[in-house]
Amino acid sequence: MLRYLSAGESHGRCLVGILEGVPAGLKIDKKQIDRELTERQKGYGRGARMKIEKDRLKILSGLRKDRTIGAPLALLIKNKDFKIDTLPSVTCPRPGHADLAGALKYDTKDIRDVLERASARSTAMRVAIGAICRTFLEGFGVKIISHVSAIGKVRAQTESFSFDQVRHNAAKSRLKCADKIAEKLMISEINNAKEAGDSLGGTFEIIAAGVPAGLGSPFHWDRRLDGALSAAVMSIPAVKAVEIGAGFLNAASRGSEVHDAIFYSSAKGFFRKTNRAGGLEGGMTNGEPLVLHCAMKPIATLKKPLASVNIRTKHETHAAVERADVCAVPACSVVGEAAVAFCLAKAYLDKFAGDTIGETKRNYEGYLKQLKDF
Amino acid sequence: MLRYLSAGESHGRCLVGILEGVPAGLKIDKKQIDRELTERQKGYGRGARMKIEKDRLKILSGLRKDRTIGAPLALLIKNKDFKIDTLPSVTCPRPGHADLAGALKYDTKDIRDVLERASARSTAMRVAIGAICRTFLEGFGVKIISHVSAIGKVRAQTESFSFDQVRHNAAKSRLKCADKIAEKLMISEINNAKEAGDSLGGTFEIIAAGVPAGLGSPFHWDRRLDGALSAAVMSIPAVKAVEIGAGFLNAASRGSEVHDAIFYSSAKGFFRKTNRAGGLEGGMTNGEPLVLHCAMKPIATLKKPLASVNIRTKHETHAAVERADVCAVPACSVVGEAAVAFCLAKAYLDKFAGDTIGETKRNYEGYLKQLKDF
Amino acid sequence: MLRYLSAGESHGRCLVGILEGVPAGLKIDKKQIDRELTERQKGYGRGARMKIEKDRLKILSGLRKDRTIGAPLALLIKNKDFKIDTLPSVTCPRPGHADLAGALKYDTKDIRDVLERASARSTAMRVAIGAICRTFLEGFGVKIISHVSAIGKVRAQTESFSFDQVRHNAAKSRLKCADKIAEKLMISEINNAKEAGDSLGGTFEIIAAGVPAGLGSPFHWDRRLDGALSAAVMSIPAVKAVEIGAGFLNAASRGSEVHDAIFYSSAKGFFRKTNRAGGLEGGMTNGEPLVLHCAMKPIATLKKPLASVNIRTKHETHAAVERADVCAVPACSVVGEAAVAFCLAKAYLDKFAGDTIGETKRNYEGYLKQLKDF
Amino acid sequence: MLRYLSAGESHGRCLVGILEGVPAGLKIDKKQIDRELTERQKGYGRGARMKIEKDRLKILSGLRKDRTIGAPLALLIKNKDFKIDTLPSVTCPRPGHADLAGALKYDTKDIRDVLERASARSTAMRVAIGAICRTFLEGFGVKIISHVSAIGKVRAQTESFSFDQVRHNAAKSRLKCADKIAEKLMISEINNAKEAGDSLGGTFEIIAAGVPAGLGSPFHWDRRLDGALSAAVMSIPAVKAVEIGAGFLNAASRGSEVHDAIFYSSAKGFFRKTNRAGGLEGGMTNGEPLVLHCAMKPIATLKKPLASVNIRTKHETHAAVERADVCAVPACSVVGEAAVAFCLAKAYLDKFAGDTIGETKRNYEGYLKQLKDF
Repeated sequence: MLRYLSAGESHGRCLVGILEGVPAGLKIDKKQIDRELTERQKGYGRGARMKIEKDRLKILSGLRKDRTIGAPLALLIKNKDFKIDTLPSVTCPRPGHADLAGALKYDTKDIRDVLERASARSTAMRVAIGAICRTFLEGFGVKIISHVSAIGKVRAQTESFSFDQVRHNAAKSRLKCADKIAEKLMISEINNAKEAGDSLGGTFEIIAAGVPAGLGSPFHWDRRLDGALSAAVMSIPAVKAVEIGAGFLNAASRGSEVHDAIFYSSAKGFFRKTNRAGGLEGGMTNGEPLVLHCAMKPIATLKKPLASVNIRTKHETHAAVERADVCAVPACSVVGEAAVAFCLAKAYLDKFAGDTIGETKRNYEGYLKQLKDF
Repeated sequence: MLRYLSAGESHGRCLVGILEGVPAGLKIDKKQIDRELTERQKGYGRGARMKIEKDRLKILSGLRKDRTIGAPLALLIKNKDFKIDTLPSVTCPRPGHADLAGALKYDTKDIRDVLERASARSTAMRVAIGAICRTFLEGFGVKIISHVSAIGKVRAQTESFSFDQVRHNAAKSRLKCADKIAEKLMISEINNAKEAGDSLGGTFEIIAAGVPAGLGSPFHWDRRLDGALSAAVMSIPAVKAVEIGAGFLNAASRGSEVHDAIFYSSAKGFFRKTNRAGGLEGGMTNGEPLVLHCAMKPIATLKKPLASVNIRTKHETHAAVERADVCAVPACSVVGEAAVAFCLAKAYLDKFAGDTIGETKRNYEGYLKQLKDF
Repeated sequence: MLRYLSAGESHGRCLVGILEGVPAGLKIDKKQIDRELTERQKGYGRGARMKIEKDRLKILSGLRKDRTIGAPLALLIKNKDFKIDTLPSVTCPRPGHADLAGALKYDTKDIRDVLERASARSTAMRVAIGAICRTFLEGFGVKIISHVSAIGKVRAQTESFSFDQVRHNAAKSRLKCADKIAEKLMISEINNAKEAGDSLGGTFEIIAAGVPAGLGSPFHWDRRLDGALSAAVMSIPAVKAVEIGAGFLNAASRGSEVHDAIFYSSAKGFFRKTNRAGGLEGGMTNGEPLVLHCAMKPIATLKKPLASVNIRTKHETHAAVERADVCAVPACSVVGEAAVAFCLAKAYLDKFAGDTIGETKRNYEGYLKQLKDF
Repeated sequence: MLRYLSAGESHGRCLVGILEGVPAGLKIDKKQIDRELTERQKGYGRGARMKIEKDRLKILSGLRKDRTIGAPLALLIKNKDFKIDTLPSVTCPRPGHADLAGALKYDTKDIRDVLERASARSTAMRVAIGAICRTFLEGFGVKIISHVSAIGKVRAQTESFSFDQVRHNAAKSRLKCADKIAEKLMISEINNAKEAGDSLGGTFEIIAAGVPAGLGSPFHWDRRLDGALSAAVMSIPAVKAVEIGAGFLNAASRGSEVHDAIFYSSAKGFFRKTNRAGGLEGGMTNGEPLVLHCAMKPIATLKKPLASVNIRTKHETHAAVERADVCAVPACSVVGEAAVAFCLAKAYLDKFAGDTIGETKRNYEGYLKQLKDF
């Protein structure tokens, strides 16, 4: 069973994670993990903090000579901006953030007690954990990518693009957007919002290719992979919606237009010509790429802040202005990949188990042969 | 900690559930539960099975004189249509259902081994469990309703309706739709689809009012209530998308148009005039009603079946035609309420604990006072 | 992941269990399960109830043609003695039972609200669940037996007996005792206690043979099999101590007398000539038989009851006299086997996973080959 | 819900832990934690390592101004002896340790891959986590102590001692033994074993006073506190037996001699004059002190090593000689306290919940009043 705990505040000493359940024998490339951490910090429209932090992962345990030994991995990312004990109190909650509900729940008149851990800074550790899971999954031929499909009202057109085109284009884009024309409009949209002291959200798509049929199960609600995947991405700060495949569009269409007809060839086995189900049927993978489409709300911290109330005086005021981005959809999309990577790695280990990578692969290959011989 | 397991096949002897963690002293009204079971079986566009089954709950344990004693509740719903061992094999998987992925995963050439448990029949038990959770929540002033917001391309207009109007209208509708004009169009839509041997999906909204601020937590990803709620509804068969509040719409708007400004009055405490966040900020309830918007794909079993492949011969064919509905969005919406009810009851018990309803209430009232005195 | 919930009161309608996670394709022999249920009801010194109940298991779901399909198994054992709603209140707590702590915790002045579920009657379902797990384990060559090693002060001498001798002798004994001479003395001991209106406890040993090295893990405390096994048996009502191997004896000896030297032959691979570790080193199985030694306290319900206090009047009185046994160590020993069977089946599925018995076996055999080739 | 993960190897860079679920507002005294870490390193009979390491805890997150904020606590203990990547391979497994089973499970020919994490060094983090839990529990008046009751064949006589006497005497003893005469004999026993190149185990008792009735529950096997406590202590490396109260002695006595008669006074409420149950009835605390008695086997690493087999050559040889202690029962006893502290803190939070210490206390005091008014 794969599991993790993470810790660390936005302006605390560091972020820490412990990932338990990775089989022995996985070769870890720290540089690749750092590249993903950097990826999370990029994107047009980010604020000052991204210039302060240059996240680098330190693996404190669980490795011998760069290979996992089956023991828990302790992970650490230093915060350059460590000053939690000297930062001033915050008394004016920002609408859209954890501030007010958190102050009430944790019964504190200093919102900093809440926002430091509630901050999206914590997602850096989530990306590090996802990066290790991705390394694991790559050994099974799984590729996970994501791309920004909209910023504010500007939508990208990528329906005609292949997996590799999307990956290639998004990698070169300042906004992780695979549609170059849309990218330009998105940059204007961000510039305009910035000028107005406002913020933007958007949507992004996560695709995981190379996943065999049969992960997850329809036999108990909490073993369904659709539920687990949506919990994974919906629990990312600011994500407020998730579709599997063509979610809302499918709901507005007839069954004959929606369901993916089944075909067979001796070369490919069973296959589909369409993938409106987003790779999930009955809560299981069906062998087609997993496709998730997510909505991120606009950043909650505004330069021109919204009306709020001082929690000590109860007087009307404006929300606190913490250092923040105008738009962070590309970063959120990177976090989304990481969340999916953890969820999928867990699903692989639930189905194939194994104390060593060799054992997991042996079990996996036995299953592939079973599918082939079906 | 509240938890449950459920069991039972579509044409098996019965459905069974065990719900563990309900405090002692909860008065159970079996009639109310049966009303909810009936509610799940209704809705224009349902098939023949709904006439066969008249679901009634039997509570086999955990009660003395109609009150819970803190012991696990064993629940049973009989299947009138019990014939699992005599039903014929199924060899042609239905696109959109668990059939193919399930046959591969469970390595069976008789899809019935899979579809019997993967069937949405299992949601009857989920409704029963949700009904008990709802009874629990009502003691804390929580009201959960749902209504159908679209069938196929027909959308209801309910933005201007109050909670009570929505409830009232939906209760009287044959489609659980609060907009009478839309309801008529929806019925035509269903008739047309039926004639075409096709099926329909749609969307529905779940609203939970009366929930205090501070359930869930932003401090660890798997304690966030947004993640838990989306897993709860996404794991309902055929649900393929979920929005919290104005999910996708928010993603296309600026921050200043999205975030719900904070106000205060001595009578109400902190409050909002808008609820675009759908009652959740930072993964916590913020005191406003919870609002989830879900998409259900069209029924996967079509009268005019889609192309498929016989899993034994590998020859092209058409999908099996199991008895089915044309449209089941109102039923799905009832299941959605139940899923939310369980998830919320668990969140209440996570926060307020208690071995007796009296203890849970005492803890809850202490918290309410803390909020009031904040 | 294997898991279960169980429900049901002593004088309720029935006991219910749901076992989730059994792979598809396991052949279930209901007669064998019923034999184990009967076994739990036997033993010299049992009370009247054992004559009333003749436990028979009903499997309500999860099977098709007597084979598991991978779906949750719903299990039911009827109570012949169903009268929970008409039985009188109990106000005098029995020392040694859940009565007083339970009344305080669940805030009830009628102890029946507590004792009905706290009763050891619930162990019948635990035996049923264990019986299914045993069937699963037998497919992997695992044999689990137990025998009574002491009743009161009378100890059996079985050190020189082989596994098969212990099994054979215990099976023929009225007290599940492998030492015939001791058995006679034990029966006198029970008769004496009975005459005195008193009760007896004792000890029993559980042995599981055929388990490969490498179940459990030393890498995280909650993955150690020694911890899981002791929780499994210690949570059986009335069990108050557990030793793994020669627990307390080992603590009084020197290391050189305790640790099991390691040998190797090409036929057997690594092996030991002694098994003082009870088959567990570093929280893992080491390939030798698992040996647990457990202590059961005397039955808490005495014919000549102990001093107690009426919880309503607070007056001194004597404990309530519920129908009860004088000695139930043989039954407890059967429950112990079942608890170990569940725990081990879970460990097998944690390590070998599999959605079908075929897949679990394929993975298992791959591991056996790895051990052989080591 | 309180939970933790820990990580770190014996000669790795450090030990790391993340403790999630501690309410906000707990004042942490780092010095007290360090005192407990030191306590774990003491005891006559310890080896060279204890002179190298002087464990000090660093709290990396979860605090602001020395108080918890409800966020996860990240904990770090540096290893002075960091050299995991340069240490030589180990090929001769030590009987009694994880070496052989671990090498087989993790399929490695270098036992160091296993022993580094399987080492009892990991218990330092367990003590740190227990120390925080103890701080939490002290706010509720809970006191947890332990003392060594036997080393090898030498037993302490402490039956007549009060809780405070045991605590006082054990604190002054070089072996955490409350019986001064026995202590002297134990030291000779250790000296003799050392001279013989051998090792010793022993027994210890853990007592937790100040716990109210009603923690744990008899209503589901995995909610029983006896099971949870025994898993907690049995999962400590080298612990091979655990008794609750007078476990094995009770099994050899009659019911009337075992069960603790119930008394009542208006001052004390319900109480007992004896505590043979060790504070647990029906899997719940009964208001009397919790008493656990544990057996630790002798250290597995011997100066005069036992017969073993080289896992590469398969030739007979002797076990590897890693640096080790002769006897570590006092240290194990400290770890036992920590394991119980975590288990109890979890039980408090399961029953009383609370996001702040204030809320937990409010709920707790409401319960105390309920008990008083019963």
